[in-house]
Amino acid sequence: MNIGIDMMGGDFAPLEAVKGLKLYLSAGTPAASLYLIGDETLVNPLLEEHQVSSPNLHLIHAPEVIGYHEHPTKALKEKQRSSIAIGFHLLATGKIDAFISAGNTGAMLVGAMYSIKPIPGVARPTIATIIPKLNGGTGLLADVGLNADCKPEQLNQFALLGSLYAQHILNIQQPSVGLMNVGEEEGKGNILAQATYPLLKENSQIQFIGNIEGRDIFGDKADVMVCDGFTGNIILKMAESIYDIARQRNLASDSYFSRFHYENYGGTPVLGVAKPVIIGHGISNDKAFMNMIGLAAKMIETDLCGKMAASFSA
Amino acid sequence: MNIGIDMMGGDFAPLEAVKGLKLYLSAGTPAASLYLIGDETLVNPLLEEHQVSSPNLHLIHAPEVIGYHEHPTKALKEKQRSSIAIGFHLLATGKIDAFISAGNTGAMLVGAMYSIKPIPGVARPTIATIIPKLNGGTGLLADVGLNADCKPEQLNQFALLGSLYAQHILNIQQPSVGLMNVGEEEGKGNILAQATYPLLKENSQIQFIGNIEGRDIFGDKADVMVCDGFTGNIILKMAESIYDIARQRNLASDSYFSRFHYENYGGTPVLGVAKPVIIGHGISNDKAFMNMIGLAAKMIETDLCGKMAASFSA
Repeated sequence: MNIGIDMMGGDFAPLEAVKGLKLYLSAGTPAASLYLIGDETLVNPLLEEHQVSSPNLHLIHAPEVIGYHEHPTKALKEKQRSSIAIGFHLLATGKIDAFISAGNTGAMLVGAMYSIKPIPGVARPTIATIIPKLNGGTGLLADVGLNADCKPEQLNQFALLGSLYAQHILNIQQPSVGLMNVGEEEGKGNILAQATYPLLKENSQIQFIGNIEGRDIFGDKADVMVCDGFTGNIILKMAESIYDIARQRNLASDSYFSRFHYENYGGTPVLGVAKPVIIGHGISNDKAFMNMIGLAAKMIETDLCGKMAASFSA
Repeated sequence: MNIGIDMMGGDFAPLEAVKGLKLYLSAGTPAASLYLIGDETLVNPLLEEHQVSSPNLHLIHAPEVIGYHEHPTKALKEKQRSSIAIGFHLLATGKIDAFISAGNTGAMLVGAMYSIKPIPGVARPTIATIIPKLNGGTGLLADVGLNADCKPEQLNQFALLGSLYAQHILNIQQPSVGLMNVGEEEGKGNILAQATYPLLKENSQIQFIGNIEGRDIFGDKADVMVCDGFTGNIILKMAESIYDIARQRNLASDSYFSRFHYENYGGTPVLGVAKPVIIGHGISNDKAFMNMIGLAAKMIETDLCGKMAASFSA
């Protein structure tokens, strides 16, 4: 398998990407060929300095970078030699099997949607985040910001996409699905939640367990939690702030709170597009890059996108 | 001033209400006359047993109780001798100046809306919750569940109601107002947030500071945070679960996490109705009841509802 990594994305690029590669390689012989996409005049000296070398590494020169504040569509069009544009070109043409970047999120989403395209039948792809559960397990929340306003049919699709991710990547057999809501009973909620409930209830491809509330996010009720991207983004950022609070309270090493650190999950997969695309946090460090490479490898190994396509054509 | 207390509301009624009275009275000579509304055959023996007596206490016999699962409108109509129905009757007729109950939330809301009524000019009253800020201060979040779907004009009104509450009850001079959103820049968000931003920006009665995100809830950016009741209810219950997590991690006595305990704020005021109505948590304990009485006294003393009416007629 071939994994493409944007070496120029993230606040600490390309240093943390290089250190992340070193961590990944030192963890064992990689099954993957890694395509490092970035400015060779910046990346090569760092690879040498940090003694990162392997026959599985291939540097692809990308002399341009899309900055954080550039307009995604415009930048992708005008900067064809940027690391993100080259990454999507390699992914679209099959030269790589997955693409990872901690760079401009908008450009990553535009590339995923227009260069890779949604799986046939998927109305809107979604981005998801890992939620550490108090019982030691891991849950998945979608959407966390790609779709601020949603239709009931979209939430129903997020439930299936999330279930397949939970099953194949998080190794949860028959993941349960909960609808984020403001009460337990059917009929509760805003117009969107009320209209979504019956769709989830009738969806035979998922294990719907009903409504869940804000207090259930870290509990056992549901493995996959679905909501619109406005609600989900607020939950995601509030959950991230719990880690910041714990750190301020000198509790960052607490075995539960430490699991909220973004570096543990590394990046956010774009679910519902035809090939694996992973978007990293802007502040991605070495461990985050290592984990994103591991996630990409697992998405390729399990043929997650193929399984999603099969489910949506069923 | 005269404060009415539903002695029959809450999971541990009337015991915790009685113990809460004792706490309140033991904290000093109360300025308020307290009207205890409940079944005298149950309340009197507990008052004696716990040695709660004061010339300021007046027991009003209410032989009926509205249960947790009763239909609010139906129960209020049919159980006119219930503690909640009597409480609203006393409040509407001016016999008491504020009414507190930890009983059936729906019945409390119906009573507030139809027996007390919204302040002229207020389209929809709101319920708010206190948010403990990391800097030691206190913020206010509204709406937290009364209005699952909102219009931009309603959020604009919540901002003013919340600002007046923050100013007069939380003693925050010129409270800043933030719009819960998924990004900092104007133009971000779902349709509701996008349409609300310009209204808040143009509202000269509030100090609008722009959008805030999930990570800002516990930070310094905004004293008053406004959102629809769907989003706010999920934030509220997620914040409450942070306390449960802390307790499970043996951190309940942490000086920050302990502030998430509902008993500290006691109850949720209904903002935008003509008289003070406070709804307690179903699991209200003695400290929660004490704090609700204190909150009612402060709402009466500051004439918060009168100030709200003046602002909405301005």
